[in-house]
Amino acid sequence: MQDDDATSFPDVLAANAAYANGFGLGGLAPRAARGLAIVTCMDSRIEPLAMLGLAPGDAKILRNAGARVTEDVLRSLVLASYLLGVDRAMVIAHTNCRMAEGDESDVHDAVRDAGGPDTRSLTFLVSGDQNGTVREDVQRVRSWPYLTGLEVGGFLYDVDSGRITQLC
Amino acid sequence: MQDDDATSFPDVLAANAAYANGFGLGGLAPRAARGLAIVTCMDSRIEPLAMLGLAPGDAKILRNAGARVTEDVLRSLVLASYLLGVDRAMVIAHTNCRMAEGDESDVHDAVRDAGGPDTRSLTFLVSGDQNGTVREDVQRVRSWPYLTGLEVGGFLYDVDSGRITQLC
Repeated sequence: MQDDDATSFPDVLAANAAYANGFGLGGLAPRAARGLAIVTCMDSRIEPLAMLGLAPGDAKILRNAGARVTEDVLRSLVLASYLLGVDRAMVIAHTNCRMAEGDESDVHDAVRDAGGPDTRSLTFLVSGDQNGTVREDVQRVRSWPYLTGLEVGGFLYDVDSGRITQLC
Repeated sequence: MQDDDATSFPDVLAANAAYANGFGLGGLAPRAARGLAIVTCMDSRIEPLAMLGLAPGDAKILRNAGARVTEDVLRSLVLASYLLGVDRAMVIAHTNCRMAEGDESDVHDAVRDAGGPDTRSLTFLVSGDQNGTVREDVQRVRSWPYLTGLEVGGFLYDVDSGRITQLC
């Protein structure tokens, strides 16, 4: 362990010690009890379980910037589907998402304006048509030949109201 | 909307309507209030916020099969770091993880035994040395030139005790 690591996380590690002392999830099975996988954004305002009435043990949760169906998500969904009890998946984007404002060049500019490096060799998967992108991402899962048994829906979560609307 | 989608998610959509009626997170800012990103597994037994004493609004949460630092995670961390207030990140694997049992061929065999397709053209990122893999993934973040300002630590979460141990 490097000294700088030891000093970067004292608050959350102290909180974890308290969590472990009162731990009540020890008996959960590894399979998703409600047969559900959720693909959503990394956004700090989203509560994937609470917003769907779920509890720990119920669902596999996949999260990245923009709730995009990447190769990483497809890989994970195969494992969830065949080995971990998942038979339905929700792709849930959200309103007021930084990945749905403008286009790739806008985000490259924003990173540079924030003091970051030139990121133009990266692709951030920004979408100027969020609802259309959710439909395309859902179609990507549906048409992926490794996931034939999975029911998939596309949704938008409103961060101001907490309400989820089904798009496809 | 396709009819089959409308019938696959009635339970969770009904629960969301109740969640929205009692919604209390409407005022949250999009930046991570505690400056934290968490990279962890999709596993249904993990509560990323509760296990670290965090609340909605505090952290960006990235999840995939195995808590692996993929291109998707790196892309997301750049956005979190420069645009969303993140200056520290935790990579948190967990005990009893399907992605840390055996090797790639064992998982391909398990998918086939579960009635799935031949997945040998896919890479699941299975690790036979979980602690070593966490250290390598942390090093991958540290050495990525697009993320120079980010403090990163590697951790193991024990699903039986709720306790997190720092590895690096």
